[in-house]
Amino acid sequence: MAKVQDCYLVVDAWKIVEDGFHPEKSRVSESLFSLSNEHMGVRGYFEEEYSGDTLIGCYLNGIYEEHALKEPTTYKGISNRIAFMVNTVNWLHARIELGGECLDLNRSRFSGFRRELDFHTGQVRREFTWTTKAGQELKVGFSRFLSMKTNELGFGRISFTPLNFSGPITVTLGLDFALPHEMYRRNFWDCPRSDAQADRWAIIGVSKSIEHKLFAGSRLLSAESITSQPVCGDKFAGSRLTLDLAQGQERHLDRATVLFTTRNPHDAAEDTWARGSRILDGLANAGYDEALEENRAYWTSFWDKADISIDGDPEAQQGIRFCIFQMQQTYRGAVEGSNIGAKGLTGEAYNGNAFWDTETYCLPYYLFSNPVAAKALIDFRFRTLPQAEERAHSLDCAGACYPIATIDGTESCTLWQHASLQFHPTTSVAYAIWHYARITGDLDFLHTEGIELLIPICRFLASRGQWSPRSNGFGYYAVMGPDEFQMMVNNNCYTNYMAQRTFLYTLSVLADMEEAAPGARHDVMRKLECSADELASWQNMADHMIIPLDPATGIYEQHQGFFDLPHIDVDAIPVEDFPLYHNWSYDRIYRNDMIKQPDVLMFMFLYSGSFSLAQKRANYDYYEPRCIHESSLSPSLHSIFAVELGLPREAFEFFNFATRIDLDNYNRNTAEGIHITSIAAAWMNVVYGYGGMRSDGDLLAFNPTIPEHWQSYSFRVSYRDSIVRVSVSQTEARIELMAGAPFAALVRGEVREINTDGLVLAQGRA
Amino acid sequence: MAKVQDCYLVVDAWKIVEDGFHPEKSRVSESLFSLSNEHMGVRGYFEEEYSGDTLIGCYLNGIYEEHALKEPTTYKGISNRIAFMVNTVNWLHARIELGGECLDLNRSRFSGFRRELDFHTGQVRREFTWTTKAGQELKVGFSRFLSMKTNELGFGRISFTPLNFSGPITVTLGLDFALPHEMYRRNFWDCPRSDAQADRWAIIGVSKSIEHKLFAGSRLLSAESITSQPVCGDKFAGSRLTLDLAQGQERHLDRATVLFTTRNPHDAAEDTWARGSRILDGLANAGYDEALEENRAYWTSFWDKADISIDGDPEAQQGIRFCIFQMQQTYRGAVEGSNIGAKGLTGEAYNGNAFWDTETYCLPYYLFSNPVAAKALIDFRFRTLPQAEERAHSLDCAGACYPIATIDGTESCTLWQHASLQFHPTTSVAYAIWHYARITGDLDFLHTEGIELLIPICRFLASRGQWSPRSNGFGYYAVMGPDEFQMMVNNNCYTNYMAQRTFLYTLSVLADMEEAAPGARHDVMRKLECSADELASWQNMADHMIIPLDPATGIYEQHQGFFDLPHIDVDAIPVEDFPLYHNWSYDRIYRNDMIKQPDVLMFMFLYSGSFSLAQKRANYDYYEPRCIHESSLSPSLHSIFAVELGLPREAFEFFNFATRIDLDNYNRNTAEGIHITSIAAAWMNVVYGYGGMRSDGDLLAFNPTIPEHWQSYSFRVSYRDSIVRVSVSQTEARIELMAGAPFAALVRGEVREINTDGLVLAQGRA
Repeated sequence: MAKVQDCYLVVDAWKIVEDGFHPEKSRVSESLFSLSNEHMGVRGYFEEEYSGDTLIGCYLNGIYEEHALKEPTTYKGISNRIAFMVNTVNWLHARIELGGECLDLNRSRFSGFRRELDFHTGQVRREFTWTTKAGQELKVGFSRFLSMKTNELGFGRISFTPLNFSGPITVTLGLDFALPHEMYRRNFWDCPRSDAQADRWAIIGVSKSIEHKLFAGSRLLSAESITSQPVCGDKFAGSRLTLDLAQGQERHLDRATVLFTTRNPHDAAEDTWARGSRILDGLANAGYDEALEENRAYWTSFWDKADISIDGDPEAQQGIRFCIFQMQQTYRGAVEGSNIGAKGLTGEAYNGNAFWDTETYCLPYYLFSNPVAAKALIDFRFRTLPQAEERAHSLDCAGACYPIATIDGTESCTLWQHASLQFHPTTSVAYAIWHYARITGDLDFLHTEGIELLIPICRFLASRGQWSPRSNGFGYYAVMGPDEFQMMVNNNCYTNYMAQRTFLYTLSVLADMEEAAPGARHDVMRKLECSADELASWQNMADHMIIPLDPATGIYEQHQGFFDLPHIDVDAIPVEDFPLYHNWSYDRIYRNDMIKQPDVLMFMFLYSGSFSLAQKRANYDYYEPRCIHESSLSPSLHSIFAVELGLPREAFEFFNFATRIDLDNYNRNTAEGIHITSIAAAWMNVVYGYGGMRSDGDLLAFNPTIPEHWQSYSFRVSYRDSIVRVSVSQTEARIELMAGAPFAALVRGEVREINTDGLVLAQGRA
Repeated sequence: MAKVQDCYLVVDAWKIVEDGFHPEKSRVSESLFSLSNEHMGVRGYFEEEYSGDTLIGCYLNGIYEEHALKEPTTYKGISNRIAFMVNTVNWLHARIELGGECLDLNRSRFSGFRRELDFHTGQVRREFTWTTKAGQELKVGFSRFLSMKTNELGFGRISFTPLNFSGPITVTLGLDFALPHEMYRRNFWDCPRSDAQADRWAIIGVSKSIEHKLFAGSRLLSAESITSQPVCGDKFAGSRLTLDLAQGQERHLDRATVLFTTRNPHDAAEDTWARGSRILDGLANAGYDEALEENRAYWTSFWDKADISIDGDPEAQQGIRFCIFQMQQTYRGAVEGSNIGAKGLTGEAYNGNAFWDTETYCLPYYLFSNPVAAKALIDFRFRTLPQAEERAHSLDCAGACYPIATIDGTESCTLWQHASLQFHPTTSVAYAIWHYARITGDLDFLHTEGIELLIPICRFLASRGQWSPRSNGFGYYAVMGPDEFQMMVNNNCYTNYMAQRTFLYTLSVLADMEEAAPGARHDVMRKLECSADELASWQNMADHMIIPLDPATGIYEQHQGFFDLPHIDVDAIPVEDFPLYHNWSYDRIYRNDMIKQPDVLMFMFLYSGSFSLAQKRANYDYYEPRCIHESSLSPSLHSIFAVELGLPREAFEFFNFATRIDLDNYNRNTAEGIHITSIAAAWMNVVYGYGGMRSDGDLLAFNPTIPEHWQSYSFRVSYRDSIVRVSVSQTEARIELMAGAPFAALVRGEVREINTDGLVLAQGRA
């Protein structure tokens, strides 16, 4: 991998720490110090004025706007509209003046800068000492966190300690809806109402085209009286406060902020205002410290269930906890109808859109920690089934086709080559249903929403596929598989294999329902006008599915003709050529046997138990050297294979990248936001990789190993009603039941009971 | 073919005639009645006010503007700029008022409308009788033509005959630079200077971004004095005239107009003004009728050399003369550095850009009627070699890559899938050199400009091609061949075959030069830093070129994998689905064995003598039923094959379409302009099709046949210094030398001398 580390943070097991300000990394830090609670997210920008490079970004899950291409492509089935998570309101706005000077770390003199994010509380704290031109020295601190208890709430504290003077300081706090959405270089909000009083201020934003209503209201939490003056401006409401400071004494300014929206554009602004105001009213007795303690309790309880501890590798320890922290704060099933954007709520990149990453990379984390959240993710697809049906129709197909990128269920990718040729989001929905039902045993879901999704998905797959006259095989022509470096190919192995699996699984669910839920089966068949003939046609398509495979070597051919492609030695590509999208002629990328990310290996991972170790080795040996891992989703997947194949050096190299992709800014684009869905794969990298867990068989399977230089590590997974802890040292591996009922699992290939006694296995090393 | 005729014009051997106004066809008529003289073109719009549907279009060859995409694609090698032939100045502007009423055929009462274009003079004449609300009846006539002698000149005449009254009429004539370019909905001209006098007016336009300077000046030609008043307006200069009319007496208003430009944006506007004015000054004694007689002389002389006569089929006769007339008026090598846009100078469609059509479809017409013009077309590519080298560089390649669409030599197609994947324009340039040198014997050209083009073309082909590791073959990956329904394929047979031919031809030219022009060879090898090793590498690539072919059937596989594509019965596609680009999901078009236009058959035509009749039959039988002829270039090519293969019914069906594509508006888009390059193929359809001429062998070949329902037909071709006439009746075919030296030709497979005695062959029927 042509990836270079760029490390400037302090290594710490439970924190990320920036010691001394790195202005050249300001956007990277803003991404890394992002906070969210699923409802809302805020980048780690500065509260006060900052004239240096910054992206003041505050996003709400599901609050989006739309951009219509100015010169639309008129060919049928091509989307010319991008729906994007829109920048909203800076609720942490502060302007600080002392002796006529405005604090601005790009211009002011300061020392002792330190910023940290604590995984135990979800609080970001920043402090430094400001020296004014007049020589006044003021220690300033900023803290913030988002409530994990009440999603609509965020808290901020600014503290001042004058070191060599006493006197007044002026602070303007406020809510600023005038932020530009950087990518489209405009502001998307109208503010029909605002209200500012001395100790509370509120404003409502109505987004320009979708008409989302967003109420923002703040109130001061300080008990003591402060001289203040309301400030109302264009899309701004706040208060200008004067504090008398006494040398050596710290004073706080605490505020609580409500960001309230129903996410229903049809709601009246007045209703949203009224409901938001009531929440603000209820904060009369709130306190910053008390709320922070609630957050600490939340995170403590969370880490008790979900921590991965690694002893003997501080970087890996920090990296994996950062990943888990980010995953959890981004999504936990708390907001109905939401999904996981590729960058979570941490930046504008990828427009806040969700991809197939949700089902393929993120879902396992939730399946084994929070099945309700996992179900809610699938529910997102159920809610957006009408849009998927509309999309299939626009592609001249039947059934339901899920978008490659979406925020509201509609296709939001305007590159036809991706939107019209990539179908793994659709098969991923089927895979997610299969995975969810298998792990949770939730047949109620499977026999209602599940099958109501599977049938239209099969219909799409049946109508998009075609028969080849020569081979009498069924397959998919003019497609792009998960590997986006093979743009327009026939019979992509992944696409065909997953379609075959989808047909067969759907048929098996319907077969099972004949006994288990005949009434529900009858109802759904009638409701969806599904006939026995249609089912037979799917069986026929599955039976004749073209799966390109070289029987002599056991190597799947990524698509028909892949083996004949010109070869390129990916290790010989100069590092300055990366990313290739920027430096190579667009077409040049697409005509070699180079791949961007796993494709064949991807389905061999998803259905791991269906392939022998020898097959995995043959395919890994063939495809890994051809892979440049330009997708951030690629390394962890390869690491899992490398562990299984006994390649500890490669396994750890991939793991390290996957776990610290953002902390070390491997892809040079963390400034744009955190790779939320990639770091979900880092969790898999420990659990499926070193833990050797497999979830595609009849029994949950474990095969724990450990990298040579770790002392030990442990992780926990929830499985149905039980919690299992796997702890591995260089001498032994323990698998023990922490809660719930004992159950049978496949441990190192043998059926064993997981119970509170714990299984102790001899040491295994990756 | 799912093509439907739409016929409303009178059939006439030497004219097109619209008898009675067809307002619903107004744009179709404007295209059909277009005039041009290579320097400039003017659509057949009305001189006077017309509030109905109209596109007032006046274009000059090589006068273009540019449009930058508002949301450019940032991938490397993708063009985000369109250079387009820009709408210029309405030099025929007239406003006619009688008794307070303004003439407007969309609002006025009129009768006896007739419009005709005469192929003998190139004059468009229109007449009707206008009845005002007050009951005044006025016979009005409009005539116009473009001088074929002095390219900068156009003439217009308006005539009035009052039928039931005497009295004054007011006419405003002028030059209007305020026209919008319809496609980009704006005007592209500034007019820094204008000048209007009673009997002459002038204005200069400077185009917004390219800064082309265009002088327009008109003067009245009438000797008698007319009451007049100069009119200057925004981008307008003209004169308001009052004529006293006497009942029953016809009066004329004649004007001559100069449109002058050097086509060099660096020229000063003042210089252009001065030079244009001098031409205008020189028209002091010009007369409409005298100039028209000069035009008649030009066209009479032209038809003497280039006519194709067909007896017994008035539609075909009119169709083929219309095609030849349009070809000749569009391009004849009169304007240095110009090319042939896909719609000539008749509309905005295709942006006035030239495609590979020039070398592949248009060149033969010129090779056999006007070799100087043919050479000038190749010279366009030589002049734009720097742009082609730049284009290759932007594609990460060496040498020269010719654009798929261009007006100034730069790539003007913003669809990467075409611009980055289609290389037949580049091989077509090599083919054109080969064809030109072979027919003209012009070794001077071949050993200078010719070889200086061939070498960079080979370099591009060498750098863009790749080796396949399995077959050890060389070929082209991720390409689109001429058939645009197979978008991104490997080893397109046409691309590979033409590349192989290009390598071998270039090597053979260099080999010939060792004896014939060793000095020139040495110079060009040194100038282009071309080594023996490089030549050897081209030989190696040519030797190993992958040419997909099924040896059992003799059928070339259009690209690797084509034979395995899902089959579609093109005859079963409902006629309302056409054009498919409008009605099918974009991706759906690209995943069947359906083709848009000839691809394998294309190279089998270009190198006809290299393939046996059996091979042609096998490939025609395979590919024709898969072809939907959505390209207007397709039918004539198929007609030529059908004649050769003895399929007279198909041959004539295709011929009829090709010859009357615009007159009968088969493709439903003649409103946008005439298919100039397609009608070039109609000429080939007679000469190569029914005439059985072949120009790819060592000797020129003829094999004349005749459709069953024609009485006879004849055509003439110039070949080197000779002129040959081929005349064919149902009983015999005659091939006779009309001028120049006798020469040997292959007639019906035998070497025969073409001389003034004439060869008489027994009747052959297509």
